[in-house]
Amino acid sequence: MSREIYLEGTSLEEALENWLLRFDTEFFSRPLPSEIIHVKDSLGRVTAEAIIAKISSPFYHSSSMDGYAVKFVDTFGASETNPKRLKIGEEAIYMDTGDPMPDGFNAVIMIEDVNIIKAESKEQKANSKKDEQEFIEIISPVTPWQNVRVIGEDIVATELILPENHRIRPVDIGAMLAAGHTELSVRKKPKIVVIPTGTEIVEPGTELKKGDIIEFNSRILSSLVSEWGGEPIRFNIVADRFEEIKNAILNALEIGDMVVINAGASAGSEDFTANVIRELGEVLLHGVNIKPGKPVILGWVKGKPVLGIPGYPVSAFITFHLFAKPLIYKWQGLESEKPDVIKAKLSRQVASSLGHEEFLRVKIGKVGNNLIATPVTRGAGVLMSLVRADGFVRIPAMSEGIGSGTEVEVELIRSKGEIENTIVCIGSHDNALDLLANILKKRYPKFTLSSAHVGSMGGLMALKRVEAHLAGTHLLDEETGEYNVPFIKRLLPDRKIVLINLVYREQGLVVLKGNPKHIKGFKDLIRDDVVFVNRQSGAGTRLLTDKCLRELNINPRDVKGYEREEYTHMGVASAVLTGIADTGLAILAAARALGLDFIPVAKERYDLAIPREFFETEMLQNLLEIIREDKEFRETVEKLGGYDVSDMGRVMYEMG
Amino acid sequence: MSREIYLEGTSLEEALENWLLRFDTEFFSRPLPSEIIHVKDSLGRVTAEAIIAKISSPFYHSSSMDGYAVKFVDTFGASETNPKRLKIGEEAIYMDTGDPMPDGFNAVIMIEDVNIIKAESKEQKANSKKDEQEFIEIISPVTPWQNVRVIGEDIVATELILPENHRIRPVDIGAMLAAGHTELSVRKKPKIVVIPTGTEIVEPGTELKKGDIIEFNSRILSSLVSEWGGEPIRFNIVADRFEEIKNAILNALEIGDMVVINAGASAGSEDFTANVIRELGEVLLHGVNIKPGKPVILGWVKGKPVLGIPGYPVSAFITFHLFAKPLIYKWQGLESEKPDVIKAKLSRQVASSLGHEEFLRVKIGKVGNNLIATPVTRGAGVLMSLVRADGFVRIPAMSEGIGSGTEVEVELIRSKGEIENTIVCIGSHDNALDLLANILKKRYPKFTLSSAHVGSMGGLMALKRVEAHLAGTHLLDEETGEYNVPFIKRLLPDRKIVLINLVYREQGLVVLKGNPKHIKGFKDLIRDDVVFVNRQSGAGTRLLTDKCLRELNINPRDVKGYEREEYTHMGVASAVLTGIADTGLAILAAARALGLDFIPVAKERYDLAIPREFFETEMLQNLLEIIREDKEFRETVEKLGGYDVSDMGRVMYEMG
Repeated sequence: MSREIYLEGTSLEEALENWLLRFDTEFFSRPLPSEIIHVKDSLGRVTAEAIIAKISSPFYHSSSMDGYAVKFVDTFGASETNPKRLKIGEEAIYMDTGDPMPDGFNAVIMIEDVNIIKAESKEQKANSKKDEQEFIEIISPVTPWQNVRVIGEDIVATELILPENHRIRPVDIGAMLAAGHTELSVRKKPKIVVIPTGTEIVEPGTELKKGDIIEFNSRILSSLVSEWGGEPIRFNIVADRFEEIKNAILNALEIGDMVVINAGASAGSEDFTANVIRELGEVLLHGVNIKPGKPVILGWVKGKPVLGIPGYPVSAFITFHLFAKPLIYKWQGLESEKPDVIKAKLSRQVASSLGHEEFLRVKIGKVGNNLIATPVTRGAGVLMSLVRADGFVRIPAMSEGIGSGTEVEVELIRSKGEIENTIVCIGSHDNALDLLANILKKRYPKFTLSSAHVGSMGGLMALKRVEAHLAGTHLLDEETGEYNVPFIKRLLPDRKIVLINLVYREQGLVVLKGNPKHIKGFKDLIRDDVVFVNRQSGAGTRLLTDKCLRELNINPRDVKGYEREEYTHMGVASAVLTGIADTGLAILAAARALGLDFIPVAKERYDLAIPREFFETEMLQNLLEIIREDKEFRETVEKLGGYDVSDMGRVMYEMG
Repeated sequence: MSREIYLEGTSLEEALENWLLRFDTEFFSRPLPSEIIHVKDSLGRVTAEAIIAKISSPFYHSSSMDGYAVKFVDTFGASETNPKRLKIGEEAIYMDTGDPMPDGFNAVIMIEDVNIIKAESKEQKANSKKDEQEFIEIISPVTPWQNVRVIGEDIVATELILPENHRIRPVDIGAMLAAGHTELSVRKKPKIVVIPTGTEIVEPGTELKKGDIIEFNSRILSSLVSEWGGEPIRFNIVADRFEEIKNAILNALEIGDMVVINAGASAGSEDFTANVIRELGEVLLHGVNIKPGKPVILGWVKGKPVLGIPGYPVSAFITFHLFAKPLIYKWQGLESEKPDVIKAKLSRQVASSLGHEEFLRVKIGKVGNNLIATPVTRGAGVLMSLVRADGFVRIPAMSEGIGSGTEVEVELIRSKGEIENTIVCIGSHDNALDLLANILKKRYPKFTLSSAHVGSMGGLMALKRVEAHLAGTHLLDEETGEYNVPFIKRLLPDRKIVLINLVYREQGLVVLKGNPKHIKGFKDLIRDDVVFVNRQSGAGTRLLTDKCLRELNINPRDVKGYEREEYTHMGVASAVLTGIADTGLAILAAARALGLDFIPVAKERYDLAIPREFFETEMLQNLLEIIREDKEFRETVEKLGGYDVSDMGRVMYEMG
């Protein structure tokens, strides 16, 4: 199989321009044909014609009050000194709100403004009957059409209710019905066929064997199509075979307005997509200078767009937004909405490669008046980076990176409200923080706890820069044997900090089940057959590692793997489980979670440091209530193993 | 039937507090029970449990590049001067991106970094076979796990993927599938039964007779329920009869989580709702001090909320948002999202009655850097005021109003993007503006034309205050006989204004078909049997009226109806059609639209005045392109009747 190298470096701007130009040329009357549906079922659909009122609303004069309809000329001259009586049933007709005005009547007097008078009429006197007649008595005249909802007060027949190309909202449904419409013409939903391809791809729920990859991209893409107003059609998985992919595309073109192939867009030897598209039609472009998402394919077959979307989930997400979303909107006669953009300060420097426009995923924290954007993992394969991200920062192709503290524009994928209700916890990692995040959401759905793991020192520095609401820390001062307080005094001398205990926890060396290498302690780390995995510098656990090595007079250079750093306890445990290393220092909960054995090393105190100015806010108070009082939280933490919760929530120290 | 007067004035705050407290008390574990659904079908649903990763992703080490898997120890010492060869198939295994690492291999060398060497092996030489062996040649060593996607790079088994009470997005679906889930537990959708009541209410599409009201509120409320994540169940219309309403509520309670009765919430004699609820259960509150929406009923029957929603559509919309939305969200385990709020300057003074919190509907215009909020009709029965509104301003109960120019907070019901892409046209009304709005949306879906009708003078004043992008004007200077220019020079002496012609149009007296009162001209307005309807002061048409009366030496006081003012040509035509008046001055298009006869009075020039600073913007240029060049626009305007489009789009004057 011949290998294809990307021919050119096309910029995103140029690629998009050509793609949309081609679309506009082929679909010169851009929207799809229309269909007739019931007004009541039209929520979220898009009008394919102007909606003009057929009838006025209201279409007759009616009373806007409970009261009596009168002719306004009959009320002339009424006053307190000279009240007027109008005969009920003849000169004054009782009306409920909404009742149509009787012919010839042109005003309504509110029920509260009349007296009901019973009086015998002359005729009745004459006839000696005892039946009474009723009158209303009024003490002021009325103006014409007073308290009357006149015809067309809401809608005048022939008036424009909704323009063409309008996305229908609940009130629009009401207005169309009120204006006499029961059906309307809306844009058809664009049908987008999504074809998952790959010999290694398996359906979710399949018994997995090594080499299998669970197919989930098509479900993300299909859901996006639904959100954008299209109709997704997902084909079954197609193996990486030329003819099969070709047939799938041909079938898809029969029923869909656009065909999306995922993946097969990179230049690997099994990647036929571009060749198939070329055989069937035209490849407009293969490869765009963006990151992630470079190997996208823009094709055109039988007058329809065919999109080759890369396989890595983040690449798939980004390229689908860039190249599929505008088409799906245009077909509906809409312009795709721009994401909300906010300005934030980048919390750390980011290098970027020249020649690629990079889509950097960031988390946003609102700490005090600071809006801070913190980059998350940049790997195209890390879907969780999207799940956890709040937005994207675009790094231009001609930039080599962005400096720490620079103000950047962030395209949001979560709402500003959610971001403002997010507690930013930066610092040491502990598994109990995951549980805390979950319980917070359960008890107070409005609030979110977001944790970033940069180690205890990093957390305290984040507090110093006002980039976090709280920091998890377990720093042991070797001189005094005291936890955290000496460090906070030194690093944050002028801040008021409340130090709350979360847990005491056991640290130890994690090893495979059954401890096949018979590791007993740190002294085994110098053995030739033992590979260690370390934590990043600044982590409390890293300090503990170094302390243990120093006590044994071991030179770190003699520890194989000392330079391989993980950022979390789970990262260390996972490295051991998967054979990357033989052992590493982590908490018992991490070992338990992955079924590893554990050699205890130390029991330590893990606290939360919270600046006074955030301590009293509603969101922190809710979080603290859970830490202090929530039984479910306490019990699930204990169940993780290795935790002592006896001081949970206790104020350990207050500074400043 | 006994009449009920609202017992008390309860504030919105107090009403809401009691209502939510009752809800929380009855549903102390607030969300509804859960149900199991497929992950792929879970878009928009809410997690009823924390989603914990069952498996790691990837769950085996795999190559992150196309290249060769090697053991990193085999590469030690490779350099440009001393390249190393590794035997393909034994020491180096070809890998496509994503292929699982063979056992014992722990790094990948990118395809671009190797040379493929064909060489005969010694054995083959010995056997004199011509088969060749292949090697890769490398010139630098690799580091362990280089170019390998290690297990758990994306997701580590036991990690928290989504917390409880999380609304599921497309990426979340992917992450759950990747983490080994195919089903999950989500909150059930709350079932909301909507019961339309009223003897006068008829289904849309029914042949209408006087007194009928088309039922559309239930469709608005049902659509809102869908948008908020609930399941609406709409009952057929129930007549205003005690037993029927009672039975409908009892049936609804069998299947729904909440019952909504619309209307029957005011104190009219046919309004049984409160009494029915009282008989079946409990009325917590009848009447809240808000406007519109006062007569809302908060009830509780058989442990479920029963909500009586007022009949006027704006009242229904507001009370449903206030009292139903938070419950529908709480049942799903969510907090209802706050609307986006922006600050804007109120364009004119608004008086408000003490003791009611008023929900004022406003349109927002972004003109230059000015955000302007303009109140629209305040009637509770005017649904179109909601269709056209951009948001709400809350006027506190203890306020008597808000002064012009005051900064107010606006709760948005349209997005900021839409507001920024809205062209604000304030000034004289002309039917051609409706057509222009529609064509603009059709050609450029991104942009909206919003017109407010305050008359020609009002429009020029709005330009002066930088509250409009353009103004429609047809002001005749009697001295010079010139249109618009003298007025602009006088009112906007220091602004650069471009004056573009839209149309010439015919003004005349509109009368009922067949002209039953034989009106010939303005002289007939002093007849005893003729009632006139006027335009508001500042309107060009009002000036024309006054000019015509002056020429005939008629004193306005002798014209019956002179004081009744309408704001649009259609308002005047509608008043004549519906018998409120016998005649009024309006354009031919308005008479034609409603099938009225027309007595020509004058032909006049209708221009658009556009400040230079807005003239060049993309949105104005798009609008001007339509005015200058769009054939469909020109033809549909001509079809309205009474228009001369020969100068359409021509620059009539440029000032400054």
